[in-house]
Amino acid sequence: MEENLTPRRPSPVPERVLWSYLVQIASALKVIHNAKLAARCIDVTKVILTDKNRVRLSACAVLDVLHLEARRPVEDLQQEDFLHLGKLILGIATNTLPRNIQDIWASLDQLGRVYSPDLKDRVSWLLSPLSPQTPNATSPTGAQPPKTAEQLLFDLAQHTADLLDASFNLQDETTAYLGRELENGRLFRLAAKLGVINERPEFDGDPNWSETGERYTLKLFRDYVFHQVDAAGNPIVDLGHVVSCLNKLDVGVDEKVYLTSRDNQTAFIVSYKELKKQAQTAFGDLLKGSSSSKQQQQQQSGRAGY
Amino acid sequence: MEENLTPRRPSPVPERVLWSYLVQIASALKVIHNAKLAARCIDVTKVILTDKNRVRLSACAVLDVLHLEARRPVEDLQQEDFLHLGKLILGIATNTLPRNIQDIWASLDQLGRVYSPDLKDRVSWLLSPLSPQTPNATSPTGAQPPKTAEQLLFDLAQHTADLLDASFNLQDETTAYLGRELENGRLFRLAAKLGVINERPEFDGDPNWSETGERYTLKLFRDYVFHQVDAAGNPIVDLGHVVSCLNKLDVGVDEKVYLTSRDNQTAFIVSYKELKKQAQTAFGDLLKGSSSSKQQQQQQSGRAGY
Repeated sequence: MEENLTPRRPSPVPERVLWSYLVQIASALKVIHNAKLAARCIDVTKVILTDKNRVRLSACAVLDVLHLEARRPVEDLQQEDFLHLGKLILGIATNTLPRNIQDIWASLDQLGRVYSPDLKDRVSWLLSPLSPQTPNATSPTGAQPPKTAEQLLFDLAQHTADLLDASFNLQDETTAYLGRELENGRLFRLAAKLGVINERPEFDGDPNWSETGERYTLKLFRDYVFHQVDAAGNPIVDLGHVVSCLNKLDVGVDEKVYLTSRDNQTAFIVSYKELKKQAQTAFGDLLKGSSSSKQQQQQQSGRAGY
Repeated sequence: MEENLTPRRPSPVPERVLWSYLVQIASALKVIHNAKLAARCIDVTKVILTDKNRVRLSACAVLDVLHLEARRPVEDLQQEDFLHLGKLILGIATNTLPRNIQDIWASLDQLGRVYSPDLKDRVSWLLSPLSPQTPNATSPTGAQPPKTAEQLLFDLAQHTADLLDASFNLQDETTAYLGRELENGRLFRLAAKLGVINERPEFDGDPNWSETGERYTLKLFRDYVFHQVDAAGNPIVDLGHVVSCLNKLDVGVDEKVYLTSRDNQTAFIVSYKELKKQAQTAFGDLLKGSSSSKQQQQQQSGRAGY
């Protein structure tokens, strides 16, 4: 009980997540700085976290608009970006809001106790004094040449490669899902097409659409797909059967299917190939008879894949 | 005409594609070498190109199995991996099969005429003599310390970052597509469910399923979704209408829908919410009556999301 009552320290952010943030923002800074701009808004309130540890910079350019008058050299602002990035990572690592960090170097020590020396080095490099602040660039105050995003990415090389691996894996996974779901779209269009063809009330009197015409087989096929019953007459509900039948219809395989009328008086043996042709003709007739505009029809047939 | 007849030189592979291959294989080598293994099969016939310039190593470990007896130190094989990678890139860049390259350094000059010096440096580093071949490592023959995948990735840092950007962008695009397509599975399941419920022949005599029962509204709703006609009685074929109706049904919105019987004698005003409830009850009844095993039912309802 007591354990639950004492306020617990939140568990620290995993190190690889911090590396991932660093790499992503460094990569963004490279693009921004190469365009002779500065991000300026690298702040815990402006960096957006989206799915799977992706971070995105928001509100870039807002300060450029707001402080149009007080123009500072873009080189200064670029160097400030690195300082802000360092503070951001430091804040996340020590679970403190950057504005609440009193002593940067004490916080850095705190970071070093949880994370690897490598990460501490990177953050300390980001936070180290900017050379423009020390006018005498060759002074022995430890100031260094201006930081560049290229240099940062260089130092992050191994972590960039790790992130790339992870990104590729995620990409493979998403593509596999997408492949599966694309099939669903195809099946849904086919099911909708069958729905549009079958049981149309307005063609009740039309001989082409009558129970003796070839649309009749499509109706019996519908029964075959959706209304399977077992020997005792109990319904069989099996989505697998529906999917497999519709897939065969979509491809138009040579396999034959045995269809019986509801009164069991008539039986047909048709191949999926013939059924596909019939469905196409029936749907084509509907489109021709359709009152919607020519353009809509074209869209429709485009979307339906015919 | 003559232009078409004279054999044309194929246009060279874009440089960023070569960098992408280098980064990807270097990244794979890092994993393989860290596992104290060697790839051994970095060959133009074994590296598989999949979509969007992704490359994958195949046949790794085959040589380990085939030449189990003739074991060579894994360090040698690892160094050979880099040489093979260099030859692979050189072959692609000069459009020659690696085994047809007579003079590596002449080919490298040819590469340098088309591509940047940076790329030439990388390939030349990969092709440079291996130190294990010169037993005296400190000899002045220009031999260098053993190559590592880490070193290679380090030198490729900027290109890794570029590739990461491209990968992230592709990921965003695929995720957007996936978001759009995910809906399809849901819609298809719903359409299949309606297909199973409506026009069931074996319930013709059952009062619950009769034309006066509540399943009747579902039948009229089916007509409403799929069999729209205009004022002149011409069919309207509009997949958008079908999708929008099924989406509303799936959510069970409060919106009301006006359904008329085929003889225009009866009219109902039902909300999608009620229709959804009716569809669920009807489908549940079917599942209860279904002769398929309990397990199948559970699978079914699991897959159907109920």
